[in-house]
Amino acid sequence: MRFDLKSYLTRQKKIVDEALERFLPPVDGIEGKVVEAARYSLFAGGKRIRPILCIAAHNAVRGNSNALMPVACAIEMIHTYSLIHDDLPAMDNDDYRRGKLTNHKVFGEAVAILAGDLLLTYAFELIASAGDAEPDARTILKVVRVIAEASGFRGMIGGQVIDIEYEGKEADLATIQYMHTKKTGALLTASVKIGALLGGANGFELERFEKYGHHFGLAFQITDDLLDITGNFHEMGKTPGSDVEKDKNTYPRLLGVEQSQEAAREHVRQAVESIRPFGDAAMPLIAIAEYLLERRR
Amino acid sequence: MRFDLKSYLTRQKKIVDEALERFLPPVDGIEGKVVEAARYSLFAGGKRIRPILCIAAHNAVRGNSNALMPVACAIEMIHTYSLIHDDLPAMDNDDYRRGKLTNHKVFGEAVAILAGDLLLTYAFELIASAGDAEPDARTILKVVRVIAEASGFRGMIGGQVIDIEYEGKEADLATIQYMHTKKTGALLTASVKIGALLGGANGFELERFEKYGHHFGLAFQITDDLLDITGNFHEMGKTPGSDVEKDKNTYPRLLGVEQSQEAAREHVRQAVESIRPFGDAAMPLIAIAEYLLERRR
Repeated sequence: MRFDLKSYLTRQKKIVDEALERFLPPVDGIEGKVVEAARYSLFAGGKRIRPILCIAAHNAVRGNSNALMPVACAIEMIHTYSLIHDDLPAMDNDDYRRGKLTNHKVFGEAVAILAGDLLLTYAFELIASAGDAEPDARTILKVVRVIAEASGFRGMIGGQVIDIEYEGKEADLATIQYMHTKKTGALLTASVKIGALLGGANGFELERFEKYGHHFGLAFQITDDLLDITGNFHEMGKTPGSDVEKDKNTYPRLLGVEQSQEAAREHVRQAVESIRPFGDAAMPLIAIAEYLLERRR
Repeated sequence: MRFDLKSYLTRQKKIVDEALERFLPPVDGIEGKVVEAARYSLFAGGKRIRPILCIAAHNAVRGNSNALMPVACAIEMIHTYSLIHDDLPAMDNDDYRRGKLTNHKVFGEAVAILAGDLLLTYAFELIASAGDAEPDARTILKVVRVIAEASGFRGMIGGQVIDIEYEGKEADLATIQYMHTKKTGALLTASVKIGALLGGANGFELERFEKYGHHFGLAFQITDDLLDITGNFHEMGKTPGSDVEKDKNTYPRLLGVEQSQEAAREHVRQAVESIRPFGDAAMPLIAIAEYLLERRR
């Protein structure tokens, strides 16, 4: 029987959306405005890839942790905060994201900055609160650490600053790879890793998931870069060609379209290879990786 | 024997400064730039009030936790991140802070936003890592939760958004008090509370420290507002009168100088009263609160 990825993703996305709604409902009072702004971006049509990877890795090791959903949702909040801050005028200065106006275009820069700060802060509150439902408090602390490291200067923030520093300058392949490993790869890898960690994975298993995350992250970034060239506004929800316009360092710019496609295929192959030992339980992770090669948005 | 507050503060500040240097040293590579920006603000002459309150509360209950210094330093990092983001052009648009150029004036807005994000993220990494040194992982999780809540939309971020929303509008005393309780009070209270928490304080004791933090926070804000009127650039390290210029809602504006001074005195009295039961061990906390009435910066 073929694995039905489309219905799997639809089902998981619904579960994640409902959990996010439960964890961050609207708030009354003047300060409710910043919650409203955070919710605007949190429910702006994200595909929930990171929480779904987290859930899929958890299931691949047949985990059963009560902390899974709060942790998976916390990752989506951190991802969303990074998008809000990246879109700011001082950073990428984007007006649209997923076909909707960016946060600062709707709520103003001050509230957008605070909405990002809120999501980052609340993510850690959510994880720490999940500790009550989890018998092993030390595992939750490890989750906090893995996520904070992946989001911090050794991970996402480090990648972002490299991206900024290289804008308008030509970077070599090693630098581009290094940047992407941090900017998008670190949080994707962390998503998979903490799903497995919460599921009780051992050190050998965790390494497999980390390897999956590493290659998945690179394939994800390459196919994202390719979409910027080959996609259209309707498919992508943002203006295509914006990377070229901003003189961004991308794979297609350095390697050309065909070689970039080949590189993406190779990373998907390696991602899939690394989790073969988990057999059928890893089917969703395999299917999601292979889907990257067909993505249209 | 009188308690020598000045030498106590000098000693504690040195300990905190050294620990901060150890926890966040310079980093090589392109991404080192954002660490440099974070360090610029972290070592820009902060008085370290929050970590010192944390240490003092810890000592008041005769605590002995290995996690104390990382946790105390994490609070200072969160405080510093909030200053960097508050100073941004989209927020308070301040050029000077503690007599030095603000972060975005030196490093540009993009890096300043990321430097703030870095400090917030790294604070949680630091606390989670401290879990290794602490036999009770669940207490550390509680610390993460208390700090995240105090920094989030129910605390600091909530207060900041109220402040923004009321700029240029007249607020009544209840609203001003509510805003300050969140904007500055929440993190000050959390500092005291987690110091006691790590020291093994029970529920009754924690309530005492929370009450101290609440009144300390209000006295702190009122005396800060008063300084903006009565201080000078040399004493304050920033341009006095900036609150008036920005049409900020302050205590002196609403109550006048004399009644504001009286309110500060009353809050200090109540702060001191709440920790009397801890006797001599609470002497530093008492002295710090009383010092607020004499502060010049």
